[in-house]
Amino acid sequence: MNWGDEGFDRRSLLAMGGGMFFCTLAGQKISASDGQIDIDAHAKGLAVPPKVAAAEAARAGSPDPAANASRTELAAFTINGPAREYWITAEPVEWNIVPTGRDQMMNMPIKGKTKFTAWAYRAWTPHFKQPLGPAKVPGPLLEVGVGETLIVHFRNKLKSPVTMHPHGIFYSNEMDGGYKGKFTDPGGFVQHNRTFTYVWEARPGTEGTWLYHDHGPMDPLPVFKGLFGPLVVRAPGEQAPEAEFFLGFHSWEPPITGLKENFACINGRAYAGNTPDLRASVGQRVGFHVYGLDNFFHTFHLHGHRWTDPDGTIIDTKTFGPADSFRLEFVEDNPGRWFYHCHVFTHFHMGMNGWYIVD
Amino acid sequence: MNWGDEGFDRRSLLAMGGGMFFCTLAGQKISASDGQIDIDAHAKGLAVPPKVAAAEAARAGSPDPAANASRTELAAFTINGPAREYWITAEPVEWNIVPTGRDQMMNMPIKGKTKFTAWAYRAWTPHFKQPLGPAKVPGPLLEVGVGETLIVHFRNKLKSPVTMHPHGIFYSNEMDGGYKGKFTDPGGFVQHNRTFTYVWEARPGTEGTWLYHDHGPMDPLPVFKGLFGPLVVRAPGEQAPEAEFFLGFHSWEPPITGLKENFACINGRAYAGNTPDLRASVGQRVGFHVYGLDNFFHTFHLHGHRWTDPDGTIIDTKTFGPADSFRLEFVEDNPGRWFYHCHVFTHFHMGMNGWYIVD
Amino acid sequence: MNWGDEGFDRRSLLAMGGGMFFCTLAGQKISASDGQIDIDAHAKGLAVPPKVAAAEAARAGSPDPAANASRTELAAFTINGPAREYWITAEPVEWNIVPTGRDQMMNMPIKGKTKFTAWAYRAWTPHFKQPLGPAKVPGPLLEVGVGETLIVHFRNKLKSPVTMHPHGIFYSNEMDGGYKGKFTDPGGFVQHNRTFTYVWEARPGTEGTWLYHDHGPMDPLPVFKGLFGPLVVRAPGEQAPEAEFFLGFHSWEPPITGLKENFACINGRAYAGNTPDLRASVGQRVGFHVYGLDNFFHTFHLHGHRWTDPDGTIIDTKTFGPADSFRLEFVEDNPGRWFYHCHVFTHFHMGMNGWYIVD
Repeated sequence: MNWGDEGFDRRSLLAMGGGMFFCTLAGQKISASDGQIDIDAHAKGLAVPPKVAAAEAARAGSPDPAANASRTELAAFTINGPAREYWITAEPVEWNIVPTGRDQMMNMPIKGKTKFTAWAYRAWTPHFKQPLGPAKVPGPLLEVGVGETLIVHFRNKLKSPVTMHPHGIFYSNEMDGGYKGKFTDPGGFVQHNRTFTYVWEARPGTEGTWLYHDHGPMDPLPVFKGLFGPLVVRAPGEQAPEAEFFLGFHSWEPPITGLKENFACINGRAYAGNTPDLRASVGQRVGFHVYGLDNFFHTFHLHGHRWTDPDGTIIDTKTFGPADSFRLEFVEDNPGRWFYHCHVFTHFHMGMNGWYIVD
Repeated sequence: MNWGDEGFDRRSLLAMGGGMFFCTLAGQKISASDGQIDIDAHAKGLAVPPKVAAAEAARAGSPDPAANASRTELAAFTINGPAREYWITAEPVEWNIVPTGRDQMMNMPIKGKTKFTAWAYRAWTPHFKQPLGPAKVPGPLLEVGVGETLIVHFRNKLKSPVTMHPHGIFYSNEMDGGYKGKFTDPGGFVQHNRTFTYVWEARPGTEGTWLYHDHGPMDPLPVFKGLFGPLVVRAPGEQAPEAEFFLGFHSWEPPITGLKENFACINGRAYAGNTPDLRASVGQRVGFHVYGLDNFFHTFHLHGHRWTDPDGTIIDTKTFGPADSFRLEFVEDNPGRWFYHCHVFTHFHMGMNGWYIVD
Repeated sequence: MNWGDEGFDRRSLLAMGGGMFFCTLAGQKISASDGQIDIDAHAKGLAVPPKVAAAEAARAGSPDPAANASRTELAAFTINGPAREYWITAEPVEWNIVPTGRDQMMNMPIKGKTKFTAWAYRAWTPHFKQPLGPAKVPGPLLEVGVGETLIVHFRNKLKSPVTMHPHGIFYSNEMDGGYKGKFTDPGGFVQHNRTFTYVWEARPGTEGTWLYHDHGPMDPLPVFKGLFGPLVVRAPGEQAPEAEFFLGFHSWEPPITGLKENFACINGRAYAGNTPDLRASVGQRVGFHVYGLDNFFHTFHLHGHRWTDPDGTIIDTKTFGPADSFRLEFVEDNPGRWFYHCHVFTHFHMGMNGWYIVD
């Protein structure tokens, strides 16, 4: 296939899965005529963007021809301050959305299949020698302090081209991780078994709660399949709270999972007892980092607690949308078993809730 | 029926009413094959959670066996500072969504039935001697000052178990009013003709505009049927504005009402002339307390006025989601007949608008 | 037709177009049985509100009987401070949503028709002598400084009655531009070939990023057809950034356009290369003014940059809803070709994205 007018039509995927995919979470029943979307099959038709092809050719005789950006090429980037290095793969993982098979909120079983093959980011020891635990959704927390440089060696073990695109942190244009049609840089189109090293800088003014996600040519399907994770840039002198939680609100829907039901999820799981059991003790400083990565708007609510919004208002519920991220902190003063959940009622009842247990 | 695996399936209700219930407000026409949801019929299968059953048994020989939490049990809770006591029932009420039968914005009649049996909180004199007016949607304003304790004696006159769950104010785990499966406390499952006394504390740091709503085992259906209301915790020294309005934005949809049309409502009514006619005078300090309690996101807009958001920005439109609540204040300077409305155009045109009249 | 009970039913339009109109952007495929809505045909049945009819009658013998508010009538309004005068028409315009026929993000053609007759506000030289360029969506930027009065001479060249309703700026009740049923003032119902002069005051406390839109009897259909634009009230001493952009996020959907596809748009266009190519240089102070004017919620995201929200948080993504408006500023420090886009994935992939190019 040529790189030209009749290129891959990602949007036809969306249209195909559209009715079911984007409407079912809003409660609508549509006949599941579309079935599961096979992203890899659609990716086969993809043309390699010119700059990516040129980088491939230039690297053909190099010691590591699989790398889209070798350490040598990295020399072109000034590494400011100390470096934090991560080794991350994207790979398939067998995933159970409701591993206990039950919903503890309603004390009832979740019937039907809840397993499928997700796509996940996975952390490794340097040079991809050993995995640091199993692949998980969301991906590993990327943590960096202001003044440091974040170096992420990313290897794509999936068949479709995917990428890593960060929010909040400073990155030069080549390090964006975004697919941009014929303007695409190598970091925006990391092919099967290729490695690309992203260099992102935690410059002053980038401190905050952020996230990262695939932004390659199949976007948003790989994100919907699990390719996202949290990123935090610590301000100078910032100390992590004694109890700290990173919560990604997202959805798993039939055209992605091949399952019959929709699941409104937190960190890859649905329903209290499957979503993270968060634990803290009275007197501890507690921090929640919350972000959204599906097509929907949510409101985060925590029972029995409240916190001060950056605008100075005391709140216990906060609206956020796709790719929004925020943090909240308080000193724990209220023991017991509490719910945290999305207050959009249909999301809440499709699994977007969990336990926060305070001793 | 046993308290076990095959327990009541609230979600099947949502699925049943799903297509119609959650999509019609977004404008979609779906055949009304589901009909009206009979919450009470579905509640019949509910098992009594263990702690609730134990409390019932323990109280069998007491002077007031109907009370889940007697005054004696309340002694276990320290009543800090002065107490504000409310006596509240939940009960059915014949409700007319469009009592004038007309929409004053379009100067046209609203055809078709607009009456149904809502569920409402109702305020009474002490010990439920006399009702303080008719049951209404939303329920009575609960008002308390920082340093005071809010004591709400709640009697459920509905057949389904329902509760009261507050936002913002401090409450210990037993006073949460949330149904929690097998972890449910008596306050999270108040049965027909039972009374439970909630003790909530307006500790420093809980000041603000809040709300309360059912969070029992049938949630969210009782909320959608009308079981919600405003709650305000006054800061020390806070003086209520000279003109003060509490506005709940919500929806009434066919599976709940049994009516043919969707109604996007403010305080239980749809369309200007039916929603509250708000009145103020030039020179008055005016306060709006706004909250959302349906499945949708809204933007509150007031014509001819603007106010300073807590973040310092001057705005005249504010986005909010389910269970979000906020207040705004300004000094009135602009006489005339103004609209306040949700700026989501379809909501606006399904009734979410009203008059603000300034002399 | 009488001004009475059986008046024009705008909502039946919405119901008619409902399924297709308000749900397709959310991804749902509905048979296009409704076809394109002919607003003018529906407007024919409209009754003239009493105050508008009275003003028409009173003016019958005047030098300019087409004007609903002559300069003489304007004398009733104090013009405070210097005046900024605009001459604006509403008129039909042939519009191409995707003028290049391509989507540069995916490097693919956009097949199918993308042209239709939009409705647009258009700026003219004084007394409507010469048009200041072609009619465009959004309408011309209205710019005024605190302490000035904004005078907008508005002539309706469309067949349906339409209006101009501003946000944020001060306006007296008669200058609201809103249709209010039998309470409607002449400025809320400007008929074909009639002129109305709106007087709006940029009083202290109205500074900010705002918008204006039709709020006449056919609302929201004329808004959905293109009748909206940006309005900015400059604070005392405020200097416009060296690079400044005004971006309206909105949708064009089949019942409005008569086209087959939905388009999620920025400033009337869909897909990178058609939406505005924004340009700035490193070192410049850059300002974005963003607002929404469709039925949906969006999140604005800019690649490679971040800014300080008014609440003090550093963000790169911001949620906003219908008629919300906000601004953001930063000093440019990152050259390259960047995306700006709505982060609601389906909106992004229906065209709500563009290039921000930094030298």
